[in-house]
Amino acid sequence: MAFFSVPQSRTLVILSAGNLATSQSVIALLEQGAGSGDPKRDIQAVDSQFDVAGIVGAVLREVIDNDGKYVAPFGDDTASFLVGGQIRGEAPRLFQVYSAGNFVEASDRTPFLQIGETKYGKPILDRALSANSSLDQAAKLALLSFDATIRSNLSVGPPIDLLRYESDSFSLANFVTLEAQNEYWRDLRQRYSNGLVALVNDLPAPPAAS
Amino acid sequence: MAFFSVPQSRTLVILSAGNLATSQSVIALLEQGAGSGDPKRDIQAVDSQFDVAGIVGAVLREVIDNDGKYVAPFGDDTASFLVGGQIRGEAPRLFQVYSAGNFVEASDRTPFLQIGETKYGKPILDRALSANSSLDQAAKLALLSFDATIRSNLSVGPPIDLLRYESDSFSLANFVTLEAQNEYWRDLRQRYSNGLVALVNDLPAPPAAS
Repeated sequence: MAFFSVPQSRTLVILSAGNLATSQSVIALLEQGAGSGDPKRDIQAVDSQFDVAGIVGAVLREVIDNDGKYVAPFGDDTASFLVGGQIRGEAPRLFQVYSAGNFVEASDRTPFLQIGETKYGKPILDRALSANSSLDQAAKLALLSFDATIRSNLSVGPPIDLLRYESDSFSLANFVTLEAQNEYWRDLRQRYSNGLVALVNDLPAPPAAS
Repeated sequence: MAFFSVPQSRTLVILSAGNLATSQSVIALLEQGAGSGDPKRDIQAVDSQFDVAGIVGAVLREVIDNDGKYVAPFGDDTASFLVGGQIRGEAPRLFQVYSAGNFVEASDRTPFLQIGETKYGKPILDRALSANSSLDQAAKLALLSFDATIRSNLSVGPPIDLLRYESDSFSLANFVTLEAQNEYWRDLRQRYSNGLVALVNDLPAPPAAS
């Protein structure tokens, strides 16, 4: 999780997935551009998060244009990003920047976005997360979504960066990194798995014929 | 779900995923071959399920060899299969036949196999299914695994064929097809989703700092 904040006026957070050389280059170029005033690179200078997402996409295209043909023989050079937060004057917004550099925004109908290894962790969000979920409920579901992915894909693992951002707070105070041995994380996983097994045990068995 | 049974001596069941023209051709060729005595086509003539899986894989290769180059311009021609059941003299066995025609077998360490759109429905199986699960518990988990996939991928849907096969029974009596409007199916999905939301509500909130 990379932060691009200006106290009291903007809180921007970027998460990345995909080729690490590509995503690190994009973040490094955005860090170099922050505060420079360069309209093509400075995500702290633009007035809306739509424009922030546009800059992230443009920088991603630049990196892929530069490196893509050299990386192609070795594998996939693409990356994708979640760009969230708030700029004073706007509500909090959340964007997903695709490998193509274009992007979509979360809405009441699609209240969550995912990048990377997304499928294992999607059902629990589809079942239980809505635009009305509290921040804590959403945070628990996000962690359980990661846990589902971690259990089903051995190449995914902690640490997990988690930010619960409250509208108009312009504060990163409620940020936590959960390591594999974190007591809350271990307890959450265990309680959820135990509860799930008990829940399924209590469900009636399927009928023997239609 | 396609059945290839001989009363009291073998119960063989095949599930398929992938290109429908390919998978239907394979099943049709296996049906034509059943009882013919042709060692390359007759899955009712061989003495072990390992050999049954081998025949399914060989027929799949034959179909792809015949059709593949014509289908390639339009899309993916591959298919995969689950081959399960019991031949008298063997324990029940379960195989997954890959698009390449080779195959793996389920074991105590990997007590379930999936084909098709597998990722959405894998976490609940990873969490709650073991080689010691009862048939009914396994059946509920399989249905909830399908439900996760159905909720997250609109192109997946009922009807769902479900067979609970008891060792040495050589019986298909406990077979059911669940349609979208089936009362048990609707009740199961609703109870599970409600229970899941309640379970997550009861979990403690994440800490505010590491």
